[in-house]
Amino acid sequence: MPLKFDLIKQDYSTAARLGKIVTSHGTVHTPAFMPVGTQGAVKSMLPEEIKNCGAEIILSNTYHLYLRPGYEIIKKIGGLHRFMNWSGPILTDSGGFQVYSLGALRKITPDGVVFHSHIDGSKHFLSPQKAIEIQEALNSDIMMCLDECTPYPATFLQAKESLALTVKWADLCIKSRNNTAQALFGIIQGGIYPDLRKEAVEQLRHFDFDGYALGGVSVGEPKEIMYKITDSITPLLPETKPRYLMGVGTPADIVFAVSRGIDMFDCVIPTRCARHGLLFTNTENVVIKNARWREDNNPIEQTCDCYTCRNYSRAYLRHLYVTGEILAMILNTIHNIRHYMRLMENIRLAISESRFEEFKKSYFNK
Amino acid sequence: MPLKFDLIKQDYSTAARLGKIVTSHGTVHTPAFMPVGTQGAVKSMLPEEIKNCGAEIILSNTYHLYLRPGYEIIKKIGGLHRFMNWSGPILTDSGGFQVYSLGALRKITPDGVVFHSHIDGSKHFLSPQKAIEIQEALNSDIMMCLDECTPYPATFLQAKESLALTVKWADLCIKSRNNTAQALFGIIQGGIYPDLRKEAVEQLRHFDFDGYALGGVSVGEPKEIMYKITDSITPLLPETKPRYLMGVGTPADIVFAVSRGIDMFDCVIPTRCARHGLLFTNTENVVIKNARWREDNNPIEQTCDCYTCRNYSRAYLRHLYVTGEILAMILNTIHNIRHYMRLMENIRLAISESRFEEFKKSYFNK
Repeated sequence: MPLKFDLIKQDYSTAARLGKIVTSHGTVHTPAFMPVGTQGAVKSMLPEEIKNCGAEIILSNTYHLYLRPGYEIIKKIGGLHRFMNWSGPILTDSGGFQVYSLGALRKITPDGVVFHSHIDGSKHFLSPQKAIEIQEALNSDIMMCLDECTPYPATFLQAKESLALTVKWADLCIKSRNNTAQALFGIIQGGIYPDLRKEAVEQLRHFDFDGYALGGVSVGEPKEIMYKITDSITPLLPETKPRYLMGVGTPADIVFAVSRGIDMFDCVIPTRCARHGLLFTNTENVVIKNARWREDNNPIEQTCDCYTCRNYSRAYLRHLYVTGEILAMILNTIHNIRHYMRLMENIRLAISESRFEEFKKSYFNK
Repeated sequence: MPLKFDLIKQDYSTAARLGKIVTSHGTVHTPAFMPVGTQGAVKSMLPEEIKNCGAEIILSNTYHLYLRPGYEIIKKIGGLHRFMNWSGPILTDSGGFQVYSLGALRKITPDGVVFHSHIDGSKHFLSPQKAIEIQEALNSDIMMCLDECTPYPATFLQAKESLALTVKWADLCIKSRNNTAQALFGIIQGGIYPDLRKEAVEQLRHFDFDGYALGGVSVGEPKEIMYKITDSITPLLPETKPRYLMGVGTPADIVFAVSRGIDMFDCVIPTRCARHGLLFTNTENVVIKNARWREDNNPIEQTCDCYTCRNYSRAYLRHLYVTGEILAMILNTIHNIRHYMRLMENIRLAISESRFEEFKKSYFNK
């Protein structure tokens, strides 16, 4: 059993769930948010800082690590955990979404995707089998099947064909696994069409994956559609498996999706916004470069328990940002990641205390 | 008494000294190296990391902090220690060298320096009195007098006039002090002329500074000249005061200067080289971007006890550097600063065990 999922509690008035994913590298309390370590590093953070912020699992990108430094090298060094000095669980994506994002640089065939590297234009082929081979070399705790990300907008027929390919590839991914100590999640596509999404669930459930992800969301569609898809799909998923909404999202997106029964999230928003000086708080977000913080001796947020808020003023953070100091990115990222982690802690606490609906209401009314 | 200097031991066969500077923010064991925090941050390092590397004192730049964020703001926030969250001793320079470095953007007058900001071209005036006013607002533990940095090359007459100005300004600096809880060091100029350097020492000794710095070195002159100046000046300095060789230098420069009786150093070499991927070791230095490290599972240096060497391979550090990850700068800087700090620890140990001459010989023969 590569992964054990305990459903600890089902919320009484929403679809929110409290759970626990046990992997050989540690336990992840769900609902969980995974900071993104695209190239084998969560940008500007030491592993100890990631952990101190409360993160229990991180995500890393197969596409990027395949191109640089190459998966054979990471395997040789002892796998991704050793390579990046992160001892906790790691989920790797399949490369599917990154390759999809290449647009004109990629061509989809029934057997996989031919693509050109965004770095040097070199030509590569990513098949379902290859995606598994790479992720097995990385030795992540949770692997993702290679999927074809259905674009938005897509016609019903396009979405149907795309879905068929994803299901076919899911089968090939399972069949090519050598290391069953690593978990494997299936990805539900089907675009904006409820019937197709439903069909996707039915077909993927047959494979009995270790978890199920909703893919092809957050690809440009209006938020209402993402919400609607999440809404209609989660009731169809097996209760006993973790559910992962890929690439989502803002704090508000997360609170919504948790209420619909999602257990796992990942997104670059907290890290990327931090590097651009946008800092999250429970009230108004802070654009740290603004002149109004020039002489402000207060932390980003009075009630925040992060390292940055405990030790630095807005005036200092503004100064670091304006002068282009690397330390600005470090301190800002710690704050934003801790903000996300505290949100997840508060969500879990609210579910465990049977007051998640109230929590959600007050979150959206603030 | 703003600063207490204990001369613990005078080496028996070289001019090396073991000492201790006690300030209200902590003790500095000498010979000491001060990492440079130009803009109120040692680039890419958290204060805890600086401390964990073994640094007991850091340097920060008056010129940069005067321009951004402005010394009134730092004063308002509670001084530089609070502003940058560094609780240990801080030495601030006077701005003299930075203004000197502006070249055509500055004009020296008998009363101070008129200069244009390198950031926005705005016009400013830095006088000896102003340099003290700023440093008192920053509330550093050790302030430096405003000096005129004698360029290299300079004629005897130029150097003599420059020296006279520096002595006059030293007097003005002392007279404008309000906070005698902060130490003040005088700066010895005089260019490459031993007679002028000697005259500078004699004149500055009258002011009974808390310490003496050698300025106008490391400004383009050949190393032999820097060595010769250090050689000829240190015997003239009072034994009971710390001696600081400004802006120096490489590990070899430091070992040499310690043997001539220097107690304090600062330099951007370890941090700047780290950001450019040049890593110091006791044998061959490592250019981390080189393809030869692609698959190297060893740390930068087997015998290094720094956080980076204890946790990361050359292969990973190369990957981070090549992919432009901020973490590369963080990990590289930790290594280089720890390398410098361990050098200082080894120097102090060698002096205390009466084997510094042997240490120096083996250092230069390696």
